[in-house]
Amino acid sequence: MKDKVEIGLMGLGVVGVGVENALREKVEDFAKQVGAPLVVKRILVRDPSKKRACQVQPHLLTTNPQHIFDDPGIDIVVEVIGGESPAYDYIKEALSRGKHVVTANKEVIAKHGFELLSLAAEHNVALLYEASAGGGIPLISPLRHDLLANKVSAIHAIINGTTNYILTKMALEDVDFTAALREAQELGYAEADPASDVEGIDAAYKLAILAALAFQTQVLPGDVYHEGISRLAARDFCYAKELGYTVKLLAIAKREDNTFQVRVHPTFIPDDLLLAKVNGVFNAVQIDGDLTGRILFYGQGAGALPTSSAILADVVRLAQNMSQGSSPMPRVQMDQTMAAKPISEIETRYYLRMTVADRPGVLAQITRVLGELLISISSVIQKEVDERAQSAEIVIMTHPARERAMQQAVSEMGKLEAVREISNLVRVED
Amino acid sequence: MKDKVEIGLMGLGVVGVGVENALREKVEDFAKQVGAPLVVKRILVRDPSKKRACQVQPHLLTTNPQHIFDDPGIDIVVEVIGGESPAYDYIKEALSRGKHVVTANKEVIAKHGFELLSLAAEHNVALLYEASAGGGIPLISPLRHDLLANKVSAIHAIINGTTNYILTKMALEDVDFTAALREAQELGYAEADPASDVEGIDAAYKLAILAALAFQTQVLPGDVYHEGISRLAARDFCYAKELGYTVKLLAIAKREDNTFQVRVHPTFIPDDLLLAKVNGVFNAVQIDGDLTGRILFYGQGAGALPTSSAILADVVRLAQNMSQGSSPMPRVQMDQTMAAKPISEIETRYYLRMTVADRPGVLAQITRVLGELLISISSVIQKEVDERAQSAEIVIMTHPARERAMQQAVSEMGKLEAVREISNLVRVED
Repeated sequence: MKDKVEIGLMGLGVVGVGVENALREKVEDFAKQVGAPLVVKRILVRDPSKKRACQVQPHLLTTNPQHIFDDPGIDIVVEVIGGESPAYDYIKEALSRGKHVVTANKEVIAKHGFELLSLAAEHNVALLYEASAGGGIPLISPLRHDLLANKVSAIHAIINGTTNYILTKMALEDVDFTAALREAQELGYAEADPASDVEGIDAAYKLAILAALAFQTQVLPGDVYHEGISRLAARDFCYAKELGYTVKLLAIAKREDNTFQVRVHPTFIPDDLLLAKVNGVFNAVQIDGDLTGRILFYGQGAGALPTSSAILADVVRLAQNMSQGSSPMPRVQMDQTMAAKPISEIETRYYLRMTVADRPGVLAQITRVLGELLISISSVIQKEVDERAQSAEIVIMTHPARERAMQQAVSEMGKLEAVREISNLVRVED
Repeated sequence: MKDKVEIGLMGLGVVGVGVENALREKVEDFAKQVGAPLVVKRILVRDPSKKRACQVQPHLLTTNPQHIFDDPGIDIVVEVIGGESPAYDYIKEALSRGKHVVTANKEVIAKHGFELLSLAAEHNVALLYEASAGGGIPLISPLRHDLLANKVSAIHAIINGTTNYILTKMALEDVDFTAALREAQELGYAEADPASDVEGIDAAYKLAILAALAFQTQVLPGDVYHEGISRLAARDFCYAKELGYTVKLLAIAKREDNTFQVRVHPTFIPDDLLLAKVNGVFNAVQIDGDLTGRILFYGQGAGALPTSSAILADVVRLAQNMSQGSSPMPRVQMDQTMAAKPISEIETRYYLRMTVADRPGVLAQITRVLGELLISISSVIQKEVDERAQSAEIVIMTHPARERAMQQAVSEMGKLEAVREISNLVRVED
């Protein structure tokens, strides 16, 4: 039994400060839960002179990561630097030196999790990453432990708060994408360069992490098809509402025999789904298990405090094991041999909006293209007519169709003389 | 490292059959996750000749619990008998004999959890009870592990599927309580004697279990105030809707300095709360943590498969620890000294519906009673007038008031000559 558990903290940004503050303010709680105090021994920073919202003793700060790796007293390294480099190298080094690692780094875990987990096992230490997806919502631990008896068939997740904030604004307040994004930036919900959020890259990292655990197989960010929300227009939200759907940026993972599909894209989901009611910066992850049926976890997916909650849960878990002299956590199983299915092979329903010439026979031409590709139509709306431009807007909802066929249909319809514009193609989940 | 983990199953009802089936059907999955096969060695039943929906080998069945206690090979006892007696004695005996226990028994855990957890610690074994609250929704484990860094300030839970089914019917299909209950019984969602569900007793057990973990203190079923749903009338649902609320049987736990309040009763909650969208037999538990902020867990709170999922998660967790030769789980901390606050001392908002004589000055009399007890009114609706009976219906929403004062007000208003009936008093949570 150790008389204290010493921590090396790498990074003292917003999340790092949150972790440091909580460890200091809750020192007695944690000591009671662990059976020994948790002590931050060293903190890696880039600039020790920078002003920070915490009361760190200056002698703890270092700019040299070796001060953490070389310290035999440090049992747990908490990495909250973010980004791939140098965090990836630091995590690798810490594990190799026999230190447990707790990280919030979605990019490193999504890209290198498989390798790093093997490295951790090799050195008989643990790599925990609850904070890498879903912020303060317990997700990794439920998938690793609580849902272990289940075969997970599907995950549907709103896993990026920035885009959900923008989509909520667009849906409820009828503002356009640019205005909603600007507001999100002003409120600090979106970054100056919003590409990673808006293009679905952030969500793709998180989905890769969750799908790997759910399907117990390696899932790489490159396996995840992703498409952003910037093409969505106010009229898409109007049609969605009329049809009984809500528009969300969904991260979807599905298991199918020996393959899986992973994709992030704007999605029409039925209004009466609980997921459709998840608004603003909140995240929610819906999981279908063969025993549990459908379950859903909801909460704040980002922010210093929620992320600290996840990091500290991992730290306390490790420290409890350590202070009781037990062996490391059960290994993460990721040895199923499943292949990712390319997006062209998936089957789903589609919403298609287009502008066409307002004259007889146009709808027949369009439906012929769809019919020849075996895409069957579930409903058609044609109502917006622009008399001056002599054009009309057509919205088609399809039955389930193959993505490859749908893309070919879009391409062929685009060549029809009567089709002025294919305005949007959005996938539908029921 | 053990070459197999042997299980003694006590009870082979609906849940027991679910557990046995899953263990058999998923034997290879579990063996891989644990590192050793999980084997059901003995099954305690009352009647070995009874037909059951599983393929148990008859020689595993026994009617003598000692066959399980006395078997040194059995590491884990799974108790799915239900009810207080004899399950409580069996769990105690199993722990005393140095066996880990996994149970789905809310009544035993709510009433005796504190004692049983101490007994488990004394004998260096674990008592796990994920299935005792919320069925397949991970709740116990998140509270024990994932949310450990948080100070939980409140739990608001829909934790009884039967009553949520009935309330959903009443709200959406405008049927009355008796008809909704009958339908729930026909569908197997409610028992022939529905008292435990309908009166909030089942929810009170589960709330005691969750609150004890959230506040890390002992909470007994007797601490939980409970009130059933049978007094709710169709008109209460109409007024709720008009006022922007949904009616739910809520299990509420709140921390206040050194006291806590725990109560189960019909509650008006704002329509826009995610909890208000939880319909049918589904459960949801909303937890407010100081770091996470608000999170919510949603899923099926009952049924053989969801309950099996929770039981098996506990079994696999123990078996993993065992097969890796590590020490038992971290102890559950319940040593805060907090007292339960009696219901008379709580402060909340109220919805009050009454029938009064339709003549001038009556509202003044009523508001005088409320005013004298320092209960301030937030809104009044008076619209239903029965001309023949010369009576009117008044609905009052109050600002936060003390329960004791409110009960006194109800009693005094009931004595007013002009008040024909106090039809309902429902607490409001915002």
